[in-house]
Amino acid sequence: MIPIVSIVGRSNSGKTTLIERVVAELTRRNYKVGTVKHDVHGFDIDKEGKDSWRHKKAGARTVVISSPNKIAMIRDVDTEIELDRIRFSLFEDVDIIITEGYKKAMNPKIEVVRKAQGSKPICSKDEQLIAVATDTEVDIDVPCFNINDVEGISNFLEETFLKKAKEERSCLLMVDGKSVPLKPFIRDFLADSIKGMVNSLKGCKDPKKIEIRID
Amino acid sequence: MIPIVSIVGRSNSGKTTLIERVVAELTRRNYKVGTVKHDVHGFDIDKEGKDSWRHKKAGARTVVISSPNKIAMIRDVDTEIELDRIRFSLFEDVDIIITEGYKKAMNPKIEVVRKAQGSKPICSKDEQLIAVATDTEVDIDVPCFNINDVEGISNFLEETFLKKAKEERSCLLMVDGKSVPLKPFIRDFLADSIKGMVNSLKGCKDPKKIEIRID
Repeated sequence: MIPIVSIVGRSNSGKTTLIERVVAELTRRNYKVGTVKHDVHGFDIDKEGKDSWRHKKAGARTVVISSPNKIAMIRDVDTEIELDRIRFSLFEDVDIIITEGYKKAMNPKIEVVRKAQGSKPICSKDEQLIAVATDTEVDIDVPCFNINDVEGISNFLEETFLKKAKEERSCLLMVDGKSVPLKPFIRDFLADSIKGMVNSLKGCKDPKKIEIRID
Repeated sequence: MIPIVSIVGRSNSGKTTLIERVVAELTRRNYKVGTVKHDVHGFDIDKEGKDSWRHKKAGARTVVISSPNKIAMIRDVDTEIELDRIRFSLFEDVDIIITEGYKKAMNPKIEVVRKAQGSKPICSKDEQLIAVATDTEVDIDVPCFNINDVEGISNFLEETFLKKAKEERSCLLMVDGKSVPLKPFIRDFLADSIKGMVNSLKGCKDPKKIEIRID
């Protein structure tokens, strides 16, 4: 499962700048990084007058633009998609996902804490706060990095999430839109059974990657 | 499987305008429509200076922006993603996918033919041309609609793709990135076996929709 780490903090604490710098550093270290921006107010994307913009405006619920080097998708949703679901459906070729925001989601968080904003974190260790990036002293029992110590923060991410031996196999299951955690035995049983069935289909000898959707 | 129909035609023949009008009409008829714009030259999306734009510019391979009513994704790819794959991974909640372009993909096509551009279609019936929308007379053995007959074209799409009884069940399989066609018996065998296994997992009683990714 691709690890997710959230950069959280008060408004204008510098989350985006930290993400920019860490993404650039991890990319320089040859990791593939994905990001998710949590935008609670709604957002505007695409450019007025473009073909895809015109499709969307006419009423299309999902619009995709596909080119040889980039693909983009814009979709209307009735309720916010959970982070788990976003990871399952929209990420596959990255080593780590860094999110901006998602204070309430249950995944590891690094908080940007600013002296000018009170030096008290908004997250606690119970909420999976694993580190702080700050321009001051923060009284909390997690690693504290200087906000400009991009190398240190990147090392920390590398040690914590990226250097772990890759899981030998991965079998992700979503049932009725919810991710189902699988113990190793069940995961292997399910994966091996399905691989066995698929392996017997014409043209599917020794499958490496299998994706199935049943409804 | 969600039906795909491509609107093809020469440059400036009016593909986008036709799509806009048909999408609006089908949406008015309560269908959920998805679109794909085939952009062979590459495209620009997102707005300079926005947080998601900054993530991308810093090197993120995939950027997602998620809000309560809209989600968007921008991803770098090494080679163009096939339409089959786009349907599998990016569409799930629509009744039909209308593409702009994709002259060479193997799916049904409606061509926009303009008198001023020579009134000779660029596609033939062998390439799955199923209709023409035109401002002139076209000598071809498929239904020809006036370019402004949005109602007629929408009726045609409805009859051809949307009124078909919904398949009783759907089981989509992708192996190593390629979609694998399944005969009904195999499809049901695979779907029922997997449903049976998943049904026995805690909290997964009587699953309606199952998604699995194994690698």
